Amino acid sequence: ERSDHYMEPKMLRSQFDTLEIPAYGLHLNISCTPEKLVSIITKYHMMQKSEFGIIGMGVMGRSLALNVLDKNIPLSVYNRVDGNEAYLLSEFLGKADAKQVSGFTSMEKFVDSLAIPRKILLMIPAGAAVDAVLTALDPYLSENDIVIDGGNSHYCDTKRRHDALAKKNIRFLGVGISGGEQGALHGPSMMAGGAREGYDQIKRILEAISAKDAHGTPCVTYLGPDGCGHFVKMIHNGIEYAEMQLLAELFSILKQRLSYPKISKLFREWNATELSSFLLEITATILTVKEDNHYLLDRILDTASSKGTGAWSAEAALELGVPASMISASVEARFLSMLKEKRVNASQKPDSAAVTPEIDLDVVKNAYAFARLINHYQGFEIIRSASGENDWHVSLSEIARLWTNGCIIRSALVSSLADRFKKNEDLMNDETIVRQMVRLEGSVRKLINAAFNSRIALPAFSSALNYWYALTTGNSSANLIQAQRDYFGAHGYGRTDSDPGLSFTTDWSPHHG
Amino acid sequence: ERSDHYMEPKMLRSQFDTLEIPAYGLHLNISCTPEKLVSIITKYHMMQKSEFGIIGMGVMGRSLALNVLDKNIPLSVYNRVDGNEAYLLSEFLGKADAKQVSGFTSMEKFVDSLAIPRKILLMIPAGAAVDAVLTALDPYLSENDIVIDGGNSHYCDTKRRHDALAKKNIRFLGVGISGGEQGALHGPSMMAGGAREGYDQIKRILEAISAKDAHGTPCVTYLGPDGCGHFVKMIHNGIEYAEMQLLAELFSILKQRLSYPKISKLFREWNATELSSFLLEITATILTVKEDNHYLLDRILDTASSKGTGAWSAEAALELGVPASMISASVEARFLSMLKEKRVNASQKPDSAAVTPEIDLDVVKNAYAFARLINHYQGFEIIRSASGENDWHVSLSEIARLWTNGCIIRSALVSSLADRFKKNEDLMNDETIVRQMVRLEGSVRKLINAAFNSRIALPAFSSALNYWYALTTGNSSANLIQAQRDYFGAHGYGRTDSDPGLSFTTDWSPHHG
Repeated sequence: ERSDHYMEPKMLRSQFDTLEIPAYGLHLNISCTPEKLVSIITKYHMMQKSEFGIIGMGVMGRSLALNVLDKNIPLSVYNRVDGNEAYLLSEFLGKADAKQVSGFTSMEKFVDSLAIPRKILLMIPAGAAVDAVLTALDPYLSENDIVIDGGNSHYCDTKRRHDALAKKNIRFLGVGISGGEQGALHGPSMMAGGAREGYDQIKRILEAISAKDAHGTPCVTYLGPDGCGHFVKMIHNGIEYAEMQLLAELFSILKQRLSYPKISKLFREWNATELSSFLLEITATILTVKEDNHYLLDRILDTASSKGTGAWSAEAALELGVPASMISASVEARFLSMLKEKRVNASQKPDSAAVTPEIDLDVVKNAYAFARLINHYQGFEIIRSASGENDWHVSLSEIARLWTNGCIIRSALVSSLADRFKKNEDLMNDETIVRQMVRLEGSVRKLINAAFNSRIALPAFSSALNYWYALTTGNSSANLIQAQRDYFGAHGYGRTDSDPGLSFTTDWSPHHG
Repeated sequence: ERSDHYMEPKMLRSQFDTLEIPAYGLHLNISCTPEKLVSIITKYHMMQKSEFGIIGMGVMGRSLALNVLDKNIPLSVYNRVDGNEAYLLSEFLGKADAKQVSGFTSMEKFVDSLAIPRKILLMIPAGAAVDAVLTALDPYLSENDIVIDGGNSHYCDTKRRHDALAKKNIRFLGVGISGGEQGALHGPSMMAGGAREGYDQIKRILEAISAKDAHGTPCVTYLGPDGCGHFVKMIHNGIEYAEMQLLAELFSILKQRLSYPKISKLFREWNATELSSFLLEITATILTVKEDNHYLLDRILDTASSKGTGAWSAEAALELGVPASMISASVEARFLSMLKEKRVNASQKPDSAAVTPEIDLDVVKNAYAFARLINHYQGFEIIRSASGENDWHVSLSEIARLWTNGCIIRSALVSSLADRFKKNEDLMNDETIVRQMVRLEGSVRKLINAAFNSRIALPAFSSALNYWYALTTGNSSANLIQAQRDYFGAHGYGRTDSDPGLSFTTDWSPHHG
């Protein structure tokens, strides 16, 4: 009957009158029949409902489960045992301290093991799997139960699921969780959205397992309704794509002149400055890792995969009309990297000899600081626009604070933005930042020129500089585009000498010109 | 009863025995009672069903209607008369030769005026309006009727509508129509998708009203099922966005050194070469148009609007994993242009004096030729990928042929591609084109360097060059991105010394390094 319950408490009967259940720290000194014992155990189980449940024992689910157990929160975990996943649950349970965890492969018994209202966290792949698990859960849930999707679901899916479950009075939350395996284990950054009442009931648990900022405040906040949390997490990942791409672009230039240990040393030096970031730190480490006396990096195929959130960020920006050129360029760079065969074939054709670029390391450093500022600006501008569009009223400062620890893009820059956004939600109104960009822009230009001379692509750096130049151009040549549109499509144009809201049209054909 | 029928045939009775219905070219010499006359007219109307119907008398619908009438195809037109559209139908009917057109404001009578199977073209704004009209049409349609959406609908909407109507045996087609007002009037390029049987029945009409290529073949083809035609039209527009952006970027450089007439003259010279295109031609004209002795261009507000297809193209590319960096950069440039107030404020801050760029006109011309090649390559690659994904089996050569006349991006380049694609669907396998790009790439580098020195943004040119450099880099730095992903997320990586399909993972943390 309980064959699905992997962590059967160990029952040691000595002399027929002592019962030990070490898994629960239980030592009873009793004399009774075996039947009586079973009834005691059953009753004990009934009383000991778990406070929290996690479905999915992949890397992230497993690590979060260990984190929960570390905070002494009684936990039930579930994993399916069909397909390739058969081993996951037993592997996890083998690692976990058995004290407060119960493992299930029956959804019904998993749900039954949870205290009411149940608090269930899904840590499963985004997409159809989430809908499948919600369907499987459905018959066992009661009103006011709380279901949390902790994966990288698309925010529109989260909204759809939230609305469907709200009708059944199930409180659904979409919580973006960042930090990778280590973050999940020791404290991730979490961006919560969805049913507010549900959040209030899981707040204590999320705060217990989350990362803490420099002031000890948990890096988890309720940000807004339905898909808001997943939206913000998606943009976190979009910013992450561009941060990684910038480092890859730096690497492609620096490796022309410097050995890996020297680049690593340079990155470590930068990491002691205001450029400090988790991604810079791990890159410095990666550059030193060897295998059989060769740098492991040289044996890694240069085809960068993506799992969706980068492209989704770019798409969301397109839908909102926000120019997030560094994210789209970074996603496109990954797509281009996947065309390995085509790249190898085409690489043999250009006969222009690539010169080794001249590099001034201060120029490189300044360019990197500049491009990171633009990247974060663009990312936060997407969130600001979505917040306005959806009436989320999120605080950019609070989001930056969430990202100061636990997550992949944690950095000195993000920490400083948590303060800066308190004064200006639009960084273009922050004189200090604008002055900094003005001071640094020349370095980006020099870096790009040097790279282009050596046939090195710098799509993210180029997008940063082009964006900045366009943003600081009061009168652009977009008037020509409006004229073209009016010429062939009579789409109309605004005038500089009139109310910009009014639309004018001209017959541009030559005989009228 | 027929008060909604604007084009009531004029009945002139002279001497009670002659009936003239000029609208139908009818002259009857009869003697009869008024009652008898009405019965003849009614019968005549019954027999004279229109061959084609158009719903929507906006710029495009009106122009296509005149085109249809010009081909002596009996036509019914419909327009709603509520809201701002009251005047459209009567305005059109005032212009049209009344001979073969009947105008309606009752959907029922409009449908009833059409020969069976009915052939109805919707020329209305994409989005909710299309669904609303389809709902309004629904009660009056019969099986095998053909409904054509000629607007810029999203291809996913077209697929949804096609599938829903197919269940009712209504043949739905999504036909992308390009060419603006003049194209619609004198012959547009048309990209048809949807119900094949339906296409076969409207083919004659579409071919009659379409543009013709250099060999006299109509620029209209059935390309594939459901949303295929609208997808291809969407990418046409995406390419158009980037072509327009390239011209705007050229303008922003050239105007630093040359007067508008000189730029216009230069563009006209180019237009006599292999750079010839409709957009280049109209740009040359636009640069000469004056108002009160001032160039009109200078009075046009530099905020470039967009209506969706550009952003949709970029989104489709993101979903397909195709790096269409020039389209996304061009859409983002329009978004940036819309931030007029922010641009004006920020423009006062950079204190780096903008130097006037040095311009070698041959460099500019070569760079333009290069960027156009990349733009078309990227656009066609999106179509090739979508075709593979959806089993459309479209011919890129045929699509290029459709675009050789009638549409906005018609050009000598598109004409040459119609031939080139016959040999290689992937232009990277076309030695002539690759050699050309290799020859031209240095000019793009020089142009960008000159522009950046003058603080001029060149997002489309930069995207073209970065794309090309990345595409011709056999070993990129994307291996670093894979290492980073494996470091923090255990996402795994492929190896250069192993089957690229296999995934490896490493514990990168410092104590293992």
